[in-house]
Amino acid sequence: MSSQPTKALETFDNPQPGRDFHIHMEIPEFTCLCPKTGQPDFAVLYLDYIPDQKCVELKSLKLYMWSFRDEGCFHEAVTNRILDDLVAATDPKFMRLTAKFYVRGGIFTNVVAEHRKPGWQPLPRVELSQFDAQSNIRG
Amino acid sequence: MSSQPTKALETFDNPQPGRDFHIHMEIPEFTCLCPKTGQPDFAVLYLDYIPDQKCVELKSLKLYMWSFRDEGCFHEAVTNRILDDLVAATDPKFMRLTAKFYVRGGIFTNVVAEHRKPGWQPLPRVELSQFDAQSNIRG
Amino acid sequence: MSSQPTKALETFDNPQPGRDFHIHMEIPEFTCLCPKTGQPDFAVLYLDYIPDQKCVELKSLKLYMWSFRDEGCFHEAVTNRILDDLVAATDPKFMRLTAKFYVRGGIFTNVVAEHRKPGWQPLPRVELSQFDAQSNIRG
Amino acid sequence: MSSQPTKALETFDNPQPGRDFHIHMEIPEFTCLCPKTGQPDFAVLYLDYIPDQKCVELKSLKLYMWSFRDEGCFHEAVTNRILDDLVAATDPKFMRLTAKFYVRGGIFTNVVAEHRKPGWQPLPRVELSQFDAQSNIRG
Amino acid sequence: MSSQPTKALETFDNPQPGRDFHIHMEIPEFTCLCPKTGQPDFAVLYLDYIPDQKCVELKSLKLYMWSFRDEGCFHEAVTNRILDDLVAATDPKFMRLTAKFYVRGGIFTNVVAEHRKPGWQPLPRVELSQFDAQSNIRG
Amino acid sequence: MSSQPTKALETFDNPQPGRDFHIHMEIPEFTCLCPKTGQPDFAVLYLDYIPDQKCVELKSLKLYMWSFRDEGCFHEAVTNRILDDLVAATDPKFMRLTAKFYVRGGIFTNVVAEHRKPGWQPLPRVELSQFDAQSNIRG
Amino acid sequence: MSSQPTKALETFDNPQPGRDFHIHMEIPEFTCLCPKTGQPDFAVLYLDYIPDQKCVELKSLKLYMWSFRDEGCFHEAVTNRILDDLVAATDPKFMRLTAKFYVRGGIFTNVVAEHRKPGWQPLPRVELSQFDAQSNIRG
Amino acid sequence: MSSQPTKALETFDNPQPGRDFHIHMEIPEFTCLCPKTGQPDFAVLYLDYIPDQKCVELKSLKLYMWSFRDEGCFHEAVTNRILDDLVAATDPKFMRLTAKFYVRGGIFTNVVAEHRKPGWQPLPRVELSQFDAQSNIRG
Amino acid sequence: MSSQPTKALETFDNPQPGRDFHIHMEIPEFTCLCPKTGQPDFAVLYLDYIPDQKCVELKSLKLYMWSFRDEGCFHEAVTNRILDDLVAATDPKFMRLTAKFYVRGGIFTNVVAEHRKPGWQPLPRVELSQFDAQSNIRG
Amino acid sequence: MSSQPTKALETFDNPQPGRDFHIHMEIPEFTCLCPKTGQPDFAVLYLDYIPDQKCVELKSLKLYMWSFRDEGCFHEAVTNRILDDLVAATDPKFMRLTAKFYVRGGIFTNVVAEHRKPGWQPLPRVELSQFDAQSNIRG
Ligand SMILES: [Ca+2]
Ligand SMILES: [Ca+2]
Ligand SMILES: [Ca+2]
Ligand SMILES: [Ca+2]
Ligand SMILES: [Ca+2]
Ligand SMILES: [Ca+2]
Ligand SMILES: [Ca+2]
Ligand SMILES: [Ca+2]
Ligand SMILES: [Ca+2]
Ligand SMILES: [Ca+2]
Ligand SMILES: [Ca+2]
Ligand SMILES: [Ca+2]
Ligand SMILES: [Ca+2]
Ligand SMILES: [Ca+2]
Ligand SMILES: [Ca+2]
Ligand SMILES: [Ca+2]
Repeated sequence: MSSQPTKALETFDNPQPGRDFHIHMEIPEFTCLCPKTGQPDFAVLYLDYIPDQKCVELKSLKLYMWSFRDEGCFHEAVTNRILDDLVAATDPKFMRLTAKFYVRGGIFTNVVAEHRKPGWQPLPRVELSQFDAQSNIRG
Repeated sequence: MSSQPTKALETFDNPQPGRDFHIHMEIPEFTCLCPKTGQPDFAVLYLDYIPDQKCVELKSLKLYMWSFRDEGCFHEAVTNRILDDLVAATDPKFMRLTAKFYVRGGIFTNVVAEHRKPGWQPLPRVELSQFDAQSNIRG
Repeated sequence: MSSQPTKALETFDNPQPGRDFHIHMEIPEFTCLCPKTGQPDFAVLYLDYIPDQKCVELKSLKLYMWSFRDEGCFHEAVTNRILDDLVAATDPKFMRLTAKFYVRGGIFTNVVAEHRKPGWQPLPRVELSQFDAQSNIRG
Repeated sequence: MSSQPTKALETFDNPQPGRDFHIHMEIPEFTCLCPKTGQPDFAVLYLDYIPDQKCVELKSLKLYMWSFRDEGCFHEAVTNRILDDLVAATDPKFMRLTAKFYVRGGIFTNVVAEHRKPGWQPLPRVELSQFDAQSNIRG
Repeated sequence: MSSQPTKALETFDNPQPGRDFHIHMEIPEFTCLCPKTGQPDFAVLYLDYIPDQKCVELKSLKLYMWSFRDEGCFHEAVTNRILDDLVAATDPKFMRLTAKFYVRGGIFTNVVAEHRKPGWQPLPRVELSQFDAQSNIRG
Repeated sequence: MSSQPTKALETFDNPQPGRDFHIHMEIPEFTCLCPKTGQPDFAVLYLDYIPDQKCVELKSLKLYMWSFRDEGCFHEAVTNRILDDLVAATDPKFMRLTAKFYVRGGIFTNVVAEHRKPGWQPLPRVELSQFDAQSNIRG
Repeated sequence: MSSQPTKALETFDNPQPGRDFHIHMEIPEFTCLCPKTGQPDFAVLYLDYIPDQKCVELKSLKLYMWSFRDEGCFHEAVTNRILDDLVAATDPKFMRLTAKFYVRGGIFTNVVAEHRKPGWQPLPRVELSQFDAQSNIRG
Repeated sequence: MSSQPTKALETFDNPQPGRDFHIHMEIPEFTCLCPKTGQPDFAVLYLDYIPDQKCVELKSLKLYMWSFRDEGCFHEAVTNRILDDLVAATDPKFMRLTAKFYVRGGIFTNVVAEHRKPGWQPLPRVELSQFDAQSNIRG
Repeated sequence: MSSQPTKALETFDNPQPGRDFHIHMEIPEFTCLCPKTGQPDFAVLYLDYIPDQKCVELKSLKLYMWSFRDEGCFHEAVTNRILDDLVAATDPKFMRLTAKFYVRGGIFTNVVAEHRKPGWQPLPRVELSQFDAQSNIRG
Repeated sequence: MSSQPTKALETFDNPQPGRDFHIHMEIPEFTCLCPKTGQPDFAVLYLDYIPDQKCVELKSLKLYMWSFRDEGCFHEAVTNRILDDLVAATDPKFMRLTAKFYVRGGIFTNVVAEHRKPGWQPLPRVELSQFDAQSNIRG
């Protein structure tokens, strides 16, 4: 695999396709350009998905994100576009992409888009008490 | 577009009208006047919506908020009024406006108002485990 | 309106009675007396309600809270009593009162009580991704 | 009431038995002994309940917790036992006990157990926007 | 019981098999090797389960986690494998394993997998107001 | 000792008068009246001192704080007055009183006042790395 | 005292002029205009001072802050100017003003300016262990 | 080494006696009895020291803390006494003990006591920018 | 002023050159390239300075940061280089630049560099009690 | 450079040897073995140093940390040993190593050790107001 920016997303086989499990990835290093002004824009992306037969490969995902570095992108459009690309590559049962953009004009904008595989139904959620994660150490 | 306060909200075309996606905007710079005393009031506004054919334009939204700077407004009324204006401009599938006002008389007041397009139904929520966002850096 | 403690709650007309909207008030300045020992007790109150025709007026609410300063009150009883008074004054569609009392005997006690107007049904909740509010400034 | 450790839980009459309201108590001062090694164990307990005719009395609850100080207790068993005792004393509509034990072997263990009165149904929850409580002061 | 790493998970009898109760364990000391590069990987694991006849023994769980120290493991596969092992050992009514891996390539990955016993149904959740736990002390 | 509000502060003998040690007390239950309007004011007090021959007794300190409940007090004056009373009762080597008042007019006010015994010098501080205290439990 | 914006700052006599004590005020409701664009700017101000003969009066301080609402102000200049006005009104032993401006151009700016009375020297600081303030309640 | 509570503190040789280094230990499991009422008291202890020839052994420290479980102790006295015992056992260059007691009478008490070896001087502190530690994981 | 990336830093006249005051700027949008691999790097920069005759202009600072977007930079070198450029442009009395880089190889790196004008001495710091800033609103 | 664990630390030339600047590295992935029991231990390390002619290379530092994976190490000894190795490799003006070990026996242990080059003196610290870093985004 090269270390060049690329729109080609690599995948690997889901190791447990018989189970609906959830993968969450936080991607803090996203930057593109404002299509109006050409100035840099920044965001943190959060990917949540339930794979079907394929999972997205980590390094490939990083190179894919890099590929937006010199492209002009509107906030609402690029979030939908990245979701579309990830869905095309992995054909998941469910996928949600959350983009949190850095402040512009004193206003903070977040965009959330989802895809569901036709016919797929989530298992009913088992609601348990929730416990916060904390540091493993003191100080 | 001028840089004067204005009640005219600009919009742009939804880039993905075929998908119900969610836009969240945090607007920390809202101030108006108390209609009883004439003294300044302050609030932070949070806008959540699912667009239909139109999205609200960021700079226009900022100028709209500016337009309340010299107007007398009651907390409960102004929250409903801003929601009405945003609905009139964008005709969204769903919109929720949350206003958190600065303390008065030792009491903190928040107001939350929603609009739903007649006939629109939200997709059933896919409930996943949630993970907190944290800093990208240390320190 | 006087500035004396009073059990008389003032109201004003709901500016948007056609919409089920939510008002949240945080009231940190509640104190009464322990009916057993006569010693002071303290709590923070949180009021959440969906008004019908009337909203509770802020200054009046403050004077009402003041009126408990010299009264003996049990935790569970006073929470229910304040809820009853607020319901009597505003006849809301829905109201929830949460009282968080200061520690006694090394144990922390919170009490939550609700009222629902007969026949009123909440709109089904539109569940969106949630985003924390943060400071408008740095440092 | 004595100030000796005791398994006898005192109660008082529910001041508002006509309403399903919620009492939350945080009890940070629980300690017992490990039945295998005899060494001290520690936990923080959280009690949530909806009373029927009786509420648990605060000082009595403290003395009850003290009564475990010299007893050997397994984590999972003692959580269920305390819940059973509280249910026997108050016969509540609903009760949930959460025990968060201090770390052992580098692993943190929490246990959550519930009781529901036969035939009792919770009112459907009214889901509102939630707002964090914060400090009443600055600094 | 030996103090050697082992895949053999010990169990003990559920002290209250007649009640569906919830055990939560946080396991911060998990490390394995990257199967591609041989370099160490780290994660924090969170185990949530509702036991049927058996509970997993704490020290045994620690030794089991140790057994991965010299094994090559992919993130998605090892999370599913640990869940499978824990299910095989305890045959629980419900089990959820959450693995939060340390950052790789600037991207943070979490994996969540669940098992439900065929025919088992969770009790409908009683939704109460939630209260954060805080420190028992000041400072 | 009575359980009535009183300005009389009780003391006990310093158990280790040969060592300059530091006592910190957080007193969250202070309320008095505004001398202009008669309305209640609230504050949280923090007491830091290095005792000489006497320490302030905890229950007495609580009753002393209660004694301000029906008195009119300006923020700056009452902080200095309480410090003066505590100094008169205990004659400490060093004492600092910090008062954090609840918001008034949208502005938060804190007041800090100190007393040093003539001729007393603090030992030079040994500056160590500092580590935050955290919860003993998870969740 | 009127309730109009005004540059005239009211004072009252220091109740304890014989002691160097510290007053801290947090003023979250500051807004002015950008002198280049005419658009609103916002900041939170923090005032720390050691009074000599005069203290600044709270309501007057609020009206003073209001007086900037329609004035054009550069960040660095307005911070120094407010400090100068407060020094002119109160002639303090020491005063520090900290202004935290809302984000502009993706950059957050804070400005800190101080005044010391000629010949005044601070007492050497007694450095004690520090303890964080926390909430008085749980949840 | 036995596993019984004991006042005998074990030590081991300082592995680097030529360097003044700092050991910080957080001990959350301290409980004793109130000498007035016989009821349990709780505290979290923090030990900071610069060893000379001996370091305190971890398991021994735990058993030492256990030895207070059935003893009556005043807050100020027991903090000084534990410091004295640790100094007697390890003869350190410097030692600071911080005890944070659980709330009593609505007031939180912390006690800090220090010992310095005669003739020992701390190296002047090199003050660097400080950076908070954060979680290694997300969520 | 153009809106192109540029190494030319604009300045404006210090509005209060007679006073040593402190300007703090947080610059979250810095990205450059790794000189070894060509892949993007990210950092958040914090600038603290005491101006002499000139202050750095905000928009110009943003364009300057943009100019590193396509340059290869080592962490330690680029931090020192940016400090050198800012010093050359503004000739400040004091300047500190803190760069917090995003994680690489599982390790987080921060770099702090300072410049002091020859002959300049800071005023001795007046150490006051410190108070945390918090949100202006609730929730 | 190989990708095998190694005690050989690589360095690179300090890019700005004429300036005393500060490098901070957080290293969350340290594990070794307990020399008594052979069981795994874990810590997070924090390295702060002022380089002289050489800086430690990031990847090499990671491989060095890896080299402790199968070695038995006491907490106090290994912290001093790692500091010695880093000093031997880079001969810095100043270096501080902070090790925060995971909990053992219910007690949390941190160790801090420093090295100063003979004859080196830190520049007197310029103490400025400090501002907390916060997230670049909302939510
Ligand atoms: Ca969390
Ligand atoms: Ca951690
Ligand atoms: Ca969050
Ligand atoms: Ca960040
Ligand atoms: Ca929140
Ligand atoms: Ca907030
Ligand atoms: Ca909360
Ligand atoms: Ca929580
Ligand atoms: Ca605690
Ligand atoms: Ca702390
Ligand atoms: Ca907790
Ligand atoms: Ca604080
Ligand atoms: Ca509080
Ligand atoms: Ca910290
Ligand atoms: Ca802060
Ligand atoms: Ca704020």
